Amino acid sequence: MAAKDEKILLAHGGGGRLTDALIRHNIAPRFSNPSLNELADAARLHLSSNRICFTTDSYVVKPLFFHGGDIGKLAVCGTINDLAVCGARPVALSLGLIIEEGFEMALLEKILDSAAAAADSAGVSIVTGDTKVVEAGAADQIFVNTSGVGECLGGIELGFERIRPGDRVLLSGTIGDHGMTIISQRQDIGFESKLVSDCAALSPVTTKLLEAVPGVRFMRDPTRGGLAATLNEIAVATKMNIEVIEQQIPVDKTVQAAADVLGFDVLEIANEGKFVAIVSAEYADAAIDVCRTHPLGAKAAVIGQVKQAEESPVVEMVTGVGGRRIVQMPYGRELPRIC
Amino acid sequence: MAAKDEKILLAHGGGGRLTDALIRHNIAPRFSNPSLNELADAARLHLSSNRICFTTDSYVVKPLFFHGGDIGKLAVCGTINDLAVCGARPVALSLGLIIEEGFEMALLEKILDSAAAAADSAGVSIVTGDTKVVEAGAADQIFVNTSGVGECLGGIELGFERIRPGDRVLLSGTIGDHGMTIISQRQDIGFESKLVSDCAALSPVTTKLLEAVPGVRFMRDPTRGGLAATLNEIAVATKMNIEVIEQQIPVDKTVQAAADVLGFDVLEIANEGKFVAIVSAEYADAAIDVCRTHPLGAKAAVIGQVKQAEESPVVEMVTGVGGRRIVQMPYGRELPRIC
Repeated sequence: MAAKDEKILLAHGGGGRLTDALIRHNIAPRFSNPSLNELADAARLHLSSNRICFTTDSYVVKPLFFHGGDIGKLAVCGTINDLAVCGARPVALSLGLIIEEGFEMALLEKILDSAAAAADSAGVSIVTGDTKVVEAGAADQIFVNTSGVGECLGGIELGFERIRPGDRVLLSGTIGDHGMTIISQRQDIGFESKLVSDCAALSPVTTKLLEAVPGVRFMRDPTRGGLAATLNEIAVATKMNIEVIEQQIPVDKTVQAAADVLGFDVLEIANEGKFVAIVSAEYADAAIDVCRTHPLGAKAAVIGQVKQAEESPVVEMVTGVGGRRIVQMPYGRELPRIC
Repeated sequence: MAAKDEKILLAHGGGGRLTDALIRHNIAPRFSNPSLNELADAARLHLSSNRICFTTDSYVVKPLFFHGGDIGKLAVCGTINDLAVCGARPVALSLGLIIEEGFEMALLEKILDSAAAAADSAGVSIVTGDTKVVEAGAADQIFVNTSGVGECLGGIELGFERIRPGDRVLLSGTIGDHGMTIISQRQDIGFESKLVSDCAALSPVTTKLLEAVPGVRFMRDPTRGGLAATLNEIAVATKMNIEVIEQQIPVDKTVQAAADVLGFDVLEIANEGKFVAIVSAEYADAAIDVCRTHPLGAKAAVIGQVKQAEESPVVEMVTGVGGRRIVQMPYGRELPRIC
């Protein structure tokens, strides 16, 4: 454990004795596994397949600690999810830290413990890492990069090009939880304590779904830009319309209230433990059934369908009062540092 | 090309329209390849082996542009080198950007072009990426993370545990070039223009060496902490002494002069295009011959040997005047943001 008031020094990133001590005493023991323990320049992995998925994400979330998680858990779950929605079984992650001089060692350890716990519970190893320290003022506390390698699940092919008119749009649970939690904590609104980020590793449920149901065409996790961005990306890539029914989109009441108070559209709010799946109509019910057997998919719902586009493809929502509105691609200005 | 004076906005990292435009117009076209072009959450790769190396490094170098390279080239070469010295053929890299709001688009494009050129010339693809933007003041211009995947070269086993007393210490060229270039540019000393970083991708020469010479036991690139740190890491891990001969260590005259003027020990200065190899005595000459056939190894030399340790293992240097001194592990304070 860190000595009381111990701080990160520039020398912790200098590649010398202090870097070595930081890695050997504070970082590596938390993630112990044979590949990492060699502390080589690269981790050696013997995979069960030579078809892999490879992804990266940097995390700059503010605040670092939030209801339901912190930057460590988020960095592990986020990268696991990017592998999961591409049809891979996540195997190994890297962990790259950029730390501001003066950052508290105890907070770093809390973040590392949280990353380790998230990786453990998803059955993923953190096998390689890097630590840089920049002078006070050159970064805001800590930024975390995780990259990940996953083994492609055998026989699974996902892609925009597999989506067909008539396919159903499945959503694995409520939207807006992560983003509204972060925003509410920043703005210190009264009911923020009731909001909890959905930050979670989705691979247990995506793997189960892909192995049990043959009709899954495509998956994506609606993070930055929210459900609105993900549906628009699908519409643009497939040149088809997406029609969703507002009343079928699961939204937590407190999340909706927070969004209303603060003037946000929950469709545009980031999620960190949800996925959208496009599933053939005949398998949609089976997919929902499989999702609902897992806590992370307990509120899974079919929220709409893919339709042939007559003109430019659009995302359209049938509203609660029976009207229709176009769901646009968010501009992106709303929510800096949400993840 | 960026419009004149175009700047990075927070919305470029928001996951909406501006992020999409930045990725599609400014980033992805520079690295075009089938895996990247899908713009999926993860890149799909079909490797020729299921034994892989996986590594990560974040780059926070200051200044961003220096003689012999920039943060883009450095980020690509550095991660390629971590794969290369572990005995892998580098295949694919990720590129994670953390950009400060207000950073000039033209500089970003210059960095990306440089990264693309470095990857191209090493035969490596950038297959996946991520872009985050933080508010002005929350980061110093731009930080780059690259992670990398390489295929282990068949039949090659490298590791500390293979090192034996009597093995030779091979160095692929001059030391201190990268670090002294960066430091001199920061301090604006008179002869800085004669200094050039050695920033380069080593995989062409390491692959050639490993395929041609059977006696290579271990390799590492002496980056942060320099040759002193790498040799000490080997001594500690093997519990053996390392003896090096000062006169046999190649050092550029201008680099030595800059180190002398500024009070640095070149042994502790970072390199970004050099490797140390531990080679069995019988194959040392052959290894040197192979290195010297490649421009990156033209000044390769045997600089010392591994010896049985009687007490605690140490790195010892026979100095130019015939004395002996212990080469300690650097503390790490000397050179923040050297890479």
